[in-house]
Amino acid sequence: MGSLFTNDYSETCRKEILDAIAAVGCGQNRGYGLDRHSENAEKLILKRFGVDDGSVFFTAGGTQTNMTVLSFLLKPYEAVLACNSGHINVHETGAVEASGHKVVTVPGRDGKVLPEEIEAAVKRHCDEHMVKIRAVYISDTTEVGSVYTESEILKIREICDKLGLLLFLDGARLGVALTCAANDIKPELLGKICDVFYVGGTKNGLLFGEAVVFKDKALAEEFRYHVKNRGAMLAKGFVPGVMFERAFTDNLYFDIAADTNRAAKYIGDNLRGKVEFLSEPVTNQIFVIVSREKGEALMREFGCELWEDRGGSLVVRIVTSFATTKDDCDRLLGFFNK
Amino acid sequence: MGSLFTNDYSETCRKEILDAIAAVGCGQNRGYGLDRHSENAEKLILKRFGVDDGSVFFTAGGTQTNMTVLSFLLKPYEAVLACNSGHINVHETGAVEASGHKVVTVPGRDGKVLPEEIEAAVKRHCDEHMVKIRAVYISDTTEVGSVYTESEILKIREICDKLGLLLFLDGARLGVALTCAANDIKPELLGKICDVFYVGGTKNGLLFGEAVVFKDKALAEEFRYHVKNRGAMLAKGFVPGVMFERAFTDNLYFDIAADTNRAAKYIGDNLRGKVEFLSEPVTNQIFVIVSREKGEALMREFGCELWEDRGGSLVVRIVTSFATTKDDCDRLLGFFNK
Amino acid sequence: MGSLFTNDYSETCRKEILDAIAAVGCGQNRGYGLDRHSENAEKLILKRFGVDDGSVFFTAGGTQTNMTVLSFLLKPYEAVLACNSGHINVHETGAVEASGHKVVTVPGRDGKVLPEEIEAAVKRHCDEHMVKIRAVYISDTTEVGSVYTESEILKIREICDKLGLLLFLDGARLGVALTCAANDIKPELLGKICDVFYVGGTKNGLLFGEAVVFKDKALAEEFRYHVKNRGAMLAKGFVPGVMFERAFTDNLYFDIAADTNRAAKYIGDNLRGKVEFLSEPVTNQIFVIVSREKGEALMREFGCELWEDRGGSLVVRIVTSFATTKDDCDRLLGFFNK
Amino acid sequence: MGSLFTNDYSETCRKEILDAIAAVGCGQNRGYGLDRHSENAEKLILKRFGVDDGSVFFTAGGTQTNMTVLSFLLKPYEAVLACNSGHINVHETGAVEASGHKVVTVPGRDGKVLPEEIEAAVKRHCDEHMVKIRAVYISDTTEVGSVYTESEILKIREICDKLGLLLFLDGARLGVALTCAANDIKPELLGKICDVFYVGGTKNGLLFGEAVVFKDKALAEEFRYHVKNRGAMLAKGFVPGVMFERAFTDNLYFDIAADTNRAAKYIGDNLRGKVEFLSEPVTNQIFVIVSREKGEALMREFGCELWEDRGGSLVVRIVTSFATTKDDCDRLLGFFNK
Repeated sequence: MGSLFTNDYSETCRKEILDAIAAVGCGQNRGYGLDRHSENAEKLILKRFGVDDGSVFFTAGGTQTNMTVLSFLLKPYEAVLACNSGHINVHETGAVEASGHKVVTVPGRDGKVLPEEIEAAVKRHCDEHMVKIRAVYISDTTEVGSVYTESEILKIREICDKLGLLLFLDGARLGVALTCAANDIKPELLGKICDVFYVGGTKNGLLFGEAVVFKDKALAEEFRYHVKNRGAMLAKGFVPGVMFERAFTDNLYFDIAADTNRAAKYIGDNLRGKVEFLSEPVTNQIFVIVSREKGEALMREFGCELWEDRGGSLVVRIVTSFATTKDDCDRLLGFFNK
Repeated sequence: MGSLFTNDYSETCRKEILDAIAAVGCGQNRGYGLDRHSENAEKLILKRFGVDDGSVFFTAGGTQTNMTVLSFLLKPYEAVLACNSGHINVHETGAVEASGHKVVTVPGRDGKVLPEEIEAAVKRHCDEHMVKIRAVYISDTTEVGSVYTESEILKIREICDKLGLLLFLDGARLGVALTCAANDIKPELLGKICDVFYVGGTKNGLLFGEAVVFKDKALAEEFRYHVKNRGAMLAKGFVPGVMFERAFTDNLYFDIAADTNRAAKYIGDNLRGKVEFLSEPVTNQIFVIVSREKGEALMREFGCELWEDRGGSLVVRIVTSFATTKDDCDRLLGFFNK
Repeated sequence: MGSLFTNDYSETCRKEILDAIAAVGCGQNRGYGLDRHSENAEKLILKRFGVDDGSVFFTAGGTQTNMTVLSFLLKPYEAVLACNSGHINVHETGAVEASGHKVVTVPGRDGKVLPEEIEAAVKRHCDEHMVKIRAVYISDTTEVGSVYTESEILKIREICDKLGLLLFLDGARLGVALTCAANDIKPELLGKICDVFYVGGTKNGLLFGEAVVFKDKALAEEFRYHVKNRGAMLAKGFVPGVMFERAFTDNLYFDIAADTNRAAKYIGDNLRGKVEFLSEPVTNQIFVIVSREKGEALMREFGCELWEDRGGSLVVRIVTSFATTKDDCDRLLGFFNK
Repeated sequence: MGSLFTNDYSETCRKEILDAIAAVGCGQNRGYGLDRHSENAEKLILKRFGVDDGSVFFTAGGTQTNMTVLSFLLKPYEAVLACNSGHINVHETGAVEASGHKVVTVPGRDGKVLPEEIEAAVKRHCDEHMVKIRAVYISDTTEVGSVYTESEILKIREICDKLGLLLFLDGARLGVALTCAANDIKPELLGKICDVFYVGGTKNGLLFGEAVVFKDKALAEEFRYHVKNRGAMLAKGFVPGVMFERAFTDNLYFDIAADTNRAAKYIGDNLRGKVEFLSEPVTNQIFVIVSREKGEALMREFGCELWEDRGGSLVVRIVTSFATTKDDCDRLLGFFNK
């Protein structure tokens, strides 16, 4: 099987990550994330994101994280607002609803929630016959590969403050978001304006694992009870601890992301003018509009996923990962040059 | 820090497991457990447990597994029966209840559910004003380190058949259960009599992961939807797939367990007559009754957990793991010989 | 306080209903809906709606009924489809989601779900990363006072059959729906094509209570367990039993509805040409587009609810009930003639 | 059918209650419990129970009330403690668990929770691997007809204060509890020491309905959202409002209860010495130990429920209600004198 452009979670992990696990050997660690590696990883992450008095918890995957955090933040009659394309709305098989909460949706634009949509939705939900919107869910990158600008995210924070809402950022692909050319958000800003966000490991070169960051320790009080209650507490919590400790040492986390973006940029730059993009690619997801024949070949030969069937043409998604090589890219470009 | 006897999930994993992950390199795999490693691991596990037409799914941890399986098997008004000491009743922070289901408890004996308790409980729950008992939860080893005999488990199956109940076995420590001297249950029997059981990886030398086995494919229909709905589906599902594939190649899974038991037996044999046991140790958990002073030293120096405070004396738990060495054991024995 | 046009649940109940309760005196009845009145009411309702082998259960209110029925019909990862304006989507404070299920929404038209929307939504939800749509929720009348035609509802049934979906009809205002001039659906049809529907009592002249009808006894198996599990089983279940028994004797239920519609028609006919309607009124809800000044007076003097603020003008809702008199209507018409 | 002693919810309601509903006529009322009758009933109830700054909400039934209140008070990982015989533990088909919360049980004595059991249970639940006990559920009368003394309930309050627990009292039969000879608790005391309690209407001569009392308005903030979210908000909330307004006018509520107790006392006094009691009867439930033959006749002729089958003898429950007459009692006594 040649290399594929299916997604960014097809390969095990970066070598440094596996080496870090191996380096632990059979040394003993406290269970449930109370070990020294997890503690150190917490410190490194808090520092990198400019959080002074927060907390970090490690979970196994994205849907689990979204559901665990949101069901912790919300009372039974409270809801989270997301845009239609939001992962929690579309691709989590109702996990947030299964935890008891409605996802109130707005159209958004380019995968991003608009501040005015938040205000209008909260205004519309005016009494006890409707859910109470209490949190806003955004993702960076969004599900369509776009990124928020500093100005956009600051406006969302502003409206959240005005309306008394919590802001939760899904960072499954936070690495490629913060290292792409289109980004002007500093990591330190996120630690100031998101009540909770998570730093994705699964899609950024780790074996698995996400790091949930609470801006304020106080908000995270008893979160460990909730994590366990949701089945999200790992007995060997030190395993993601070790991986995140390594990822946030020597800037590895962002280096991995930068490599991932670099491969995508190389493809994008070489395709520009030759193929139509659904939108200008900025991170590691490139959506190309091609003929049905070409699209089907892309899916068959490169494992690309179909994004949209437009009848005559197809929108197909190309994704790079930490493991994508220049050879992989050239082979893909060769396909387009045929 | 010297070696500890805190539990069997303090160390990363057996070398063979990490080697297997490394061997995958950056080869690409389908996501969500649909990869070749997971498929192969499924075949190996089904074969080992004598299951002809079943299914296997990989999850990240024990509480998650118990909650996900039980909330799949039960309708909203149905309950699971467990004994008081059952993990789902005591040590999962209400995860099963959080999924909406009552855990009906019976006293049990030595951590084991008695067939007559099942029958009496079902008889007592006689109309729609009480929950309907639909499943029985047992664990092997039990939470107190004991194991079921073939005769005991066959009687439970018989009563389940009579009453139309599903039998679910928590095998967090199934390895040490099936390889200990007191065991007379063949793996192949479990595949015949448990509707669902799980084969624990976390406490048997893997980095993480449990393998959920359904005896009948039909019962597992749409289980993938449910796994995703509970946040339990790993994007890199191939990671536990690779680990379980290796564990069920060349009998590694049971070799690890046998090593773990061997260390415990060595300790038990050398302590017998010198220290009082809470019950005769049969697997990798040894409960010793010692003076308060000695017990506190055991906890301090060997990381042992307090099991019961009896005022004048303490019951303290000693646990061996895949990584316990003879030197570790001798150091512990030296402590008792002081 | 003069008479109001706020809604159809502002008054206690029709005299015949209270008389029926009084007639029971202190005679004794079995609890939990197992009494003779409930049994008789069940027979009368099944007969009236052409159900041969179904079941009827009495509950206290609409939101409770929707949530109880849907959480009974759906597995944890299954969802119900409704149109945006659907009561379960907007005005139940997330009760369905609180029971664990996503409400998948489609735009609909005039408060009604379109068959093609159902097909498209089911097609879009194609794998286990998305909820599985299993039921369709419609309401008759809809939340905007419109009614389904026989042709429309038959097409919905057809698409449900094709896709293996259950059809659930919210009949909070079923009386006025089936007795209005625009209706061409016979009660007996509903008993053939809805898997479950409920006959609303609260908004049709009863003190409280809804009658849930299952077309097939088999589908209702163990529903009593579920009703109790949701807190929806009344100890004095005979009270709604007595009321529904009376309502379905001598056509009272539909007479009440016809009276309610008659009052609305009288208002509508006299306003036609003088006031702009949001849509042609067909049942007991009339939406008028009036100047801000007039709208505010309507709300102040007649308790009407604001439906939409269009800046310069307001859309205001006028609702008649079983208790609306000709005098009430004339007073309202006088207001418009001022 | 002659009069029965099955339970206290077999008859519709006291005449005064129905008269009060009739007296409302077709006057209009605000929906959802915001009407004048509900407001007045709230004032009367708060005053009677000595609550200065609390809130009252009306619901339809007991299980609904317990589930709605507890799921409002508890975070997802928090649990309620009850004694084994507690209604929420045995006879609510897992409604509390369906709302996501574990019911931690203690043996209790005579249907009552003991303060020392609370303390021991909280101490045992010591970390995030176990649920956090946050509320204590007691019932007065208990499920076995006994009542708390002032001294007992004050000790429970004291332990709750010490441990930071909320105290919730299920008052399904609060009327007979507070008016029986064995009671020394003043209504005003309950308003001081219970964080939340409910005053049962269904079993005390109303058509249906329970009044939930919060001691502090602050604790009840947003409870209306939660009530709606649970499907427990009645559109015609004024109906229970009218009934409770009447019940708490001219002491009717307690007069009904006193009548109910009087009938039971008359039976008890006349049976004493002739029949063996399971425990000395104090309220409207009398448990007699009789021969199998006599017990079966009691069940057949008087609708009594079997409480316990002791092989040779049966324990059978006799319950009086607001509608029990002296003739009914004499007929029953006649049976015993045969």
